[in-house]
Amino acid sequence: MFELLKTDSATKARLGRLTTAHGTVDTPVYMPVGTQASVKALDPRELLEMGTQIILGNTYHLNLRPGLDIIRAAGGLHQFMNWGKPILTDSGGFQVFSLAKIRKIKPHGVEFRSHIDGSLLFLGPKEAMEIQRVLGSDIAMVFDECPPHDAPAKEQRHAVERTIRWAKECREQPRADGQKVFGIVQGGNNAALREECAKALVAMDFDGYAIGGVSVGEPEPEMLQAIEFSVPHLPAHKARYAMGLGTPAQMLELVARGVDMFDCVLPTRVARNGTAFTRRGAFGIKGGAYKADFGPLEEGCDCFACKHFTRAYLRHLLKVNEILGLRMVSVHNSHLFIKVMADARQHLAAGTFGEFYREFIAHYVPSQKVLAARKAASNER
Amino acid sequence: MFELLKTDSATKARLGRLTTAHGTVDTPVYMPVGTQASVKALDPRELLEMGTQIILGNTYHLNLRPGLDIIRAAGGLHQFMNWGKPILTDSGGFQVFSLAKIRKIKPHGVEFRSHIDGSLLFLGPKEAMEIQRVLGSDIAMVFDECPPHDAPAKEQRHAVERTIRWAKECREQPRADGQKVFGIVQGGNNAALREECAKALVAMDFDGYAIGGVSVGEPEPEMLQAIEFSVPHLPAHKARYAMGLGTPAQMLELVARGVDMFDCVLPTRVARNGTAFTRRGAFGIKGGAYKADFGPLEEGCDCFACKHFTRAYLRHLLKVNEILGLRMVSVHNSHLFIKVMADARQHLAAGTFGEFYREFIAHYVPSQKVLAARKAASNER
Repeated sequence: MFELLKTDSATKARLGRLTTAHGTVDTPVYMPVGTQASVKALDPRELLEMGTQIILGNTYHLNLRPGLDIIRAAGGLHQFMNWGKPILTDSGGFQVFSLAKIRKIKPHGVEFRSHIDGSLLFLGPKEAMEIQRVLGSDIAMVFDECPPHDAPAKEQRHAVERTIRWAKECREQPRADGQKVFGIVQGGNNAALREECAKALVAMDFDGYAIGGVSVGEPEPEMLQAIEFSVPHLPAHKARYAMGLGTPAQMLELVARGVDMFDCVLPTRVARNGTAFTRRGAFGIKGGAYKADFGPLEEGCDCFACKHFTRAYLRHLLKVNEILGLRMVSVHNSHLFIKVMADARQHLAAGTFGEFYREFIAHYVPSQKVLAARKAASNER
Repeated sequence: MFELLKTDSATKARLGRLTTAHGTVDTPVYMPVGTQASVKALDPRELLEMGTQIILGNTYHLNLRPGLDIIRAAGGLHQFMNWGKPILTDSGGFQVFSLAKIRKIKPHGVEFRSHIDGSLLFLGPKEAMEIQRVLGSDIAMVFDECPPHDAPAKEQRHAVERTIRWAKECREQPRADGQKVFGIVQGGNNAALREECAKALVAMDFDGYAIGGVSVGEPEPEMLQAIEFSVPHLPAHKARYAMGLGTPAQMLELVARGVDMFDCVLPTRVARNGTAFTRRGAFGIKGGAYKADFGPLEEGCDCFACKHFTRAYLRHLLKVNEILGLRMVSVHNSHLFIKVMADARQHLAAGTFGEFYREFIAHYVPSQKVLAARKAASNER
C-alpha cells in the first residue's frame, strides 16, 4: 500500500506514495477534514483545484447524522458527498472520549450518550469497523482510547491496553473492498507506553500506523516528544500519520521526524473567525491595518482567493458576516496547508528538504491565538 | 440606453437590451442582490456560471460598511468586489425608511440613526447620488421615499411629492462616467398618485424607471395593481424595473405586464433556511421526505448544485449546519431565477411567450412560507 520513494539525508523526512482503492496519494500529505461529509465551507471543485489528494470523514459524526442507512443507500460516503478521490475515516474513538458523555467503558467498547440528542449509544471495535465498512472509506482507523494529555499514568496505561486489545478486534472485522486499516499508537507522553503500544500494533501488521493522543491540549514540546517516542518503533515501509495536527510549521517539524500524513481542522476553523495562514505565520484579517490593503491574503499565493480578492475586500466581508469572506479564507488556508506539503515533496525529491525545512521554521512566527484555537477544535474532528 | 427589440402580441411583455458602461444586459432580467458587495454565499465565478448579467449593490449599506473611502481607494465597487459586469445601486431610500431610525425628514433628505451603531447620519438626493458616483455603478437610482404599504393617504401623497422633488435634485447631481440614472415611481396602491408620480418623472427624462413601494408587505393583488397603475404612464423606449420582486411566478406576471428588470433577495435568503425553488414552487429540503432522495434539487436543472449533489446530501448538510448546504441551495435558487428570465427572453424571441407564461403560472404553486419570508427580507435590500 505504501511505497517509500526516498528518505531525506539531513532529517528523517520521507517521500512516499500511498495506493488506495480510489487512487494514489503522494506523501507527505495534508488531508482536509470533512467531519460531517463536507470540508467546512468548501465544495469538491475548490478542493480539487487546490490539489487535495485525500480527505477525512468521521465515523462518530456520520453514524449520528445522516446515519448509516442513508449513506448505504447512497452507495457509500464517496457517492453520498460526490468525492471521487480517497477518503480516510477516523474511527470515532477520539469523539467518544472527547465529545460524548461516557456512561461506561466496557470490554468491547464504550456506552455513551450522543452529544446531539443524548440518546444512548454503543461504539466499540466491531461497531466502528462496521460503520467504516459501510462508509466505504479507503483507509479505516482502529477504534482506540484517547485519554486527555494530563491523564494520570494509570489511565494512560489502561488506555494503551484497551487500544491494543481493540486494535486486535478491529483487525479481525470485515472490511469494504480494498479498504486498508491503520493502527493507532497511544501512550501519552510516556516513552515506554508509546514503545509498547507501537510494538504491539506492528506485530498485528496494519496497513499503516497513526500516532494518536497528540493535539489534545498538550504543549508543543510534549507533542513533538510523543511523536519522537513513537516513530522509531514503526516500520519504514508503512505510512505514518500524526492525528489532528497541526500548523504549517508543526507539520514540517513532524515531516522532519518521519511522519507522512496529517489532518487538521485549523485551516477552516480559524478562517471562520477571520484568521489567515501564511508561510510566515497567521494573522487576523479583520484587523484595522487591512482596511485599505489591496494586496492578496498572501503575496505570491495562487489560490482562488488570492487570485480574485484583496485583503480589504475579505476584511469587509468578514466584518459584515458575509459568507464569501469565511469561504475565501478557508480556501486560502487549506490551499496553503496542501501547498506546503507539496513543496516538502518537491524538496524531498530534489534533496533540498533540510534547507527548506530550516528556512520555513526560521521565518514562521507561531500565533498564540491559533494555538489556543487548537484546543477548541475537538468537536470538529 | 434601452433598445426595445420586440413586444409580445398576447401580453405586454417586452424583449429588450440595456447598454451600460460595463456591457449589455438582455431583458427581461433577474438581478441577484449583493447588498453589502457580495451576493450572499456566492462567489463571482458561480454568478457568471449561472448566467448573471448584472447585480445590485446598496448605497445605504456600503456607505456604512466598508465606507466610501475604502471603495474609492479600491477604484470603485466593481474593482472592490471583483465584478466586471454591470452593477445597479439602490439609492438607500428604501433602507432609510425601513431599517434606520428616522430622526427627521427635512427638505433635502433624511436625518437618521445607523441601524449598526446608532450614529447620526444624513442621506438625501445629493448624498445618495454622490455615494453612487463614488461606487461607480452602471445604473444609479434616485433617492425616494418609500412609505409602508398601509400608510395613510396623506402620507402616500407626501411621499410622492418628496419623491418627485428629490428625483429632480438627483437628476442634477454629478455622475460617474457613463452612469445612468433611473427614477422611482411611488404612490402606493393609489392610481392617481402612481400616475402623477410617473408623469412627473417621465417629464424629467430619466434613463429608465423603477416602480417602488412594492414588495413592502402588501398582498400580491395589491402589488400587481400598483404595477398596473404605473406601467401605462411609462415610455415604451425606456427600461422598467420592479423593485424587490419577486418569486419566479411573480416575475413572469410582471413581465407579462411590461416590466423588464427584477431584483429579489428571496433566492439566497430562503436558501439559508433550506428552501429550494423549482418551476413548480418552493419546497423545504430539510423535510424528512428527502432523507434518502438521491435525485437533484430539480429534475432537469443544469446548475452546479443539481449537477453535483443530491437532495439527500443537501438535506444532510442543511440539517447539520454545513455551509456547503446553504451555498448550494443559493446557487440553485439564483440559477433558477436567472434561467426563468432567460426562458422568457427565448419565448419572447420565438413569439411563444404567452403560452410559456400561462403554463408556468398554471403549474406554479406559491408557498406561503416563501411569501412570509418576503416580509422579513427588508434588511437584506
